[in-house]
Amino acid sequence: MAFRFEIVKTDPSGARLGRLITPHGTIETPAFMPVGTAGTVKAMTQEALEELQVPLLLANTYHLYLRPGHELIRRMGGLHRFMAWGGGILTDSGGYQVFSLADLRKVSDEGVRFRSHLDGTEHLLTPEKAIEVQRALGSDIGMVLDECIEYPATRERAASAAQRTLEWASRSKNEMETAPPSEATPEQVFFAIVQGGTFKDLRRQNAAELVALDFPGYAIGGLAVGEPHELSCEIAGETAACLPMERARYLMGVGKPEQLVDYVRCGIDMMDCVLPTRNARNGYLYTSQGPLHIKNAEFIDDARPIDESCGCMVCRRYSRAYLCHLFRANEILGAILNTHHNLYFFLDIMRAIREAIAFGNLSRFSSELQARLEAGHP
Amino acid sequence: MAFRFEIVKTDPSGARLGRLITPHGTIETPAFMPVGTAGTVKAMTQEALEELQVPLLLANTYHLYLRPGHELIRRMGGLHRFMAWGGGILTDSGGYQVFSLADLRKVSDEGVRFRSHLDGTEHLLTPEKAIEVQRALGSDIGMVLDECIEYPATRERAASAAQRTLEWASRSKNEMETAPPSEATPEQVFFAIVQGGTFKDLRRQNAAELVALDFPGYAIGGLAVGEPHELSCEIAGETAACLPMERARYLMGVGKPEQLVDYVRCGIDMMDCVLPTRNARNGYLYTSQGPLHIKNAEFIDDARPIDESCGCMVCRRYSRAYLCHLFRANEILGAILNTHHNLYFFLDIMRAIREAIAFGNLSRFSSELQARLEAGHP
Repeated sequence: MAFRFEIVKTDPSGARLGRLITPHGTIETPAFMPVGTAGTVKAMTQEALEELQVPLLLANTYHLYLRPGHELIRRMGGLHRFMAWGGGILTDSGGYQVFSLADLRKVSDEGVRFRSHLDGTEHLLTPEKAIEVQRALGSDIGMVLDECIEYPATRERAASAAQRTLEWASRSKNEMETAPPSEATPEQVFFAIVQGGTFKDLRRQNAAELVALDFPGYAIGGLAVGEPHELSCEIAGETAACLPMERARYLMGVGKPEQLVDYVRCGIDMMDCVLPTRNARNGYLYTSQGPLHIKNAEFIDDARPIDESCGCMVCRRYSRAYLCHLFRANEILGAILNTHHNLYFFLDIMRAIREAIAFGNLSRFSSELQARLEAGHP
Repeated sequence: MAFRFEIVKTDPSGARLGRLITPHGTIETPAFMPVGTAGTVKAMTQEALEELQVPLLLANTYHLYLRPGHELIRRMGGLHRFMAWGGGILTDSGGYQVFSLADLRKVSDEGVRFRSHLDGTEHLLTPEKAIEVQRALGSDIGMVLDECIEYPATRERAASAAQRTLEWASRSKNEMETAPPSEATPEQVFFAIVQGGTFKDLRRQNAAELVALDFPGYAIGGLAVGEPHELSCEIAGETAACLPMERARYLMGVGKPEQLVDYVRCGIDMMDCVLPTRNARNGYLYTSQGPLHIKNAEFIDDARPIDESCGCMVCRRYSRAYLCHLFRANEILGAILNTHHNLYFFLDIMRAIREAIAFGNLSRFSSELQARLEAGHP
């Protein structure tokens, strides 16, 4: 099925209820994507992801390119088939991990030269290569290569990265149109990524220039890199306002549970974040009353579920005391159950957000959620 | 429900088809028990164990006594409730792990004094303490404390350990009759353990003396500690022949897939082993054609399931190539899927063994299984 994005309802805040139609299913938006770094959402079976009704997950091109390699995945029929996942997959361009994980990075107009963090081998990631690798993976939605910068950054640095991002997007567009499509997922689409740091005028300019290139969807990159949440919202909102109404908007790498609704109110349709999965493995669990550290002594003999108002498989069956024991004994089951719960928590917030938009009470929902989550913080 | 063992059918070989009725369900025998060391079968959710139709699992008293502690588990309503497991649980006495894991201080008639392998604290495990701890855990079937010896051992050492095992069994019997029963599982029973090394006359004598004490079931300990398989079978068979027909017989710590049927033919009703779970985490997978090491290069692009004739959840969905990738990337999902498959493989052999006894063709089944499994070995 060809890619399509439809808006079902808009909210005065700017929030949008919609659906993303992809070759591997329809995703209700606003949507949160669990991160499946190396072709697996850590500690989750694909069966568990189905039980959680995950419609779309993110896989990291950088990790899969290095191991097991995109050519292997191409030969195995693409990433969906390789990981036995029938739902949607979005891949990033690999750029963000090159900038954050790899060694000896050298960025030039050509692309970014780096050494693998696994074995030190040297690689060159160009806009064209990012397309080629993602076509081998056969994700439903890919990303063009962009230049990510740190926060804070000078205006000069932000402007230069935005300019290079635009040039790379243009080259990506050309590559998309001339190179052969993905064999596994011929209907695969690529989103452009807006950069510009925390400078509104640079964001506006970069967005306008990318929109002129006409992509089927747009991501907002370079946020959630250390700046205050209010600033993230301000820049995300300003950028989203420059993007076409009828195209999907993806804010990369966010966010905390209490922030998700803020981004939705900025007009964001898609988000992804490692917080629910990574924190779960560290014993940090989300609840409707705020987070808890399951290893703490107070939970050793606590017979209650993680969250008494949660309907997930874990909260229906297992106690905090058991999860505390599993964490302290470093048992794999601790990672499994903690991850399951945290993902459910994030996905449940997104369900509630979609419902609130549908019923026209997003503003009230947002205030109540913030108050509830903050009440649990000491 | 009170504990009961019933024999449904006997085979000319000595094999028995039966059922073990416990407070937490009926177990068809011969049965294989997965090992749930610290109150979790490593990498498995309790939901997965249910899907695998595991009726009975083994938990290690030594591990649970040290962490989280039997008093905590008692307060939490017993081990079934603590780990949210409605099926059967058998606990060992803790003796074997004290002898193999702890820093051993001193065995005396009183008991065994040891230091925890976790934090070096000193503890004394006596026959009475082993009963007390297992009553706190509330397992369906507990074990009395025995003295385990190494292989090979002298006749003198084997005789002395068998004698101490007998004295400890007698004290355990007394403790069982005078101390309060398990609150969580009042119908809990304890099995005695026959020792005597590889000396048939010592085994016969120890069995006869323990049988005189009248336990509801008997375990055979001190085997599978390094001796050749033929010798294990010989000693297990000789010992089983000295035990009452109508009582359940449990051979501790065995075995390899191709050995299970041999033990059943010795008249064994219950077995447990870490092989399926531990090997799974090391990427060693069992198949109907013999084992494979999933990390090997030959599996990198192998799109077939682990075992084409296996009906487990893993073989129905995932490829060797994906499992090879997960193992090499050290992903938790690798441990999960490998463990699921290996447990299914062992449980499936036990199902086939029970069916073969029922249909009266255990001997033919045994030859065919051995031939098939050995064909896969280089």
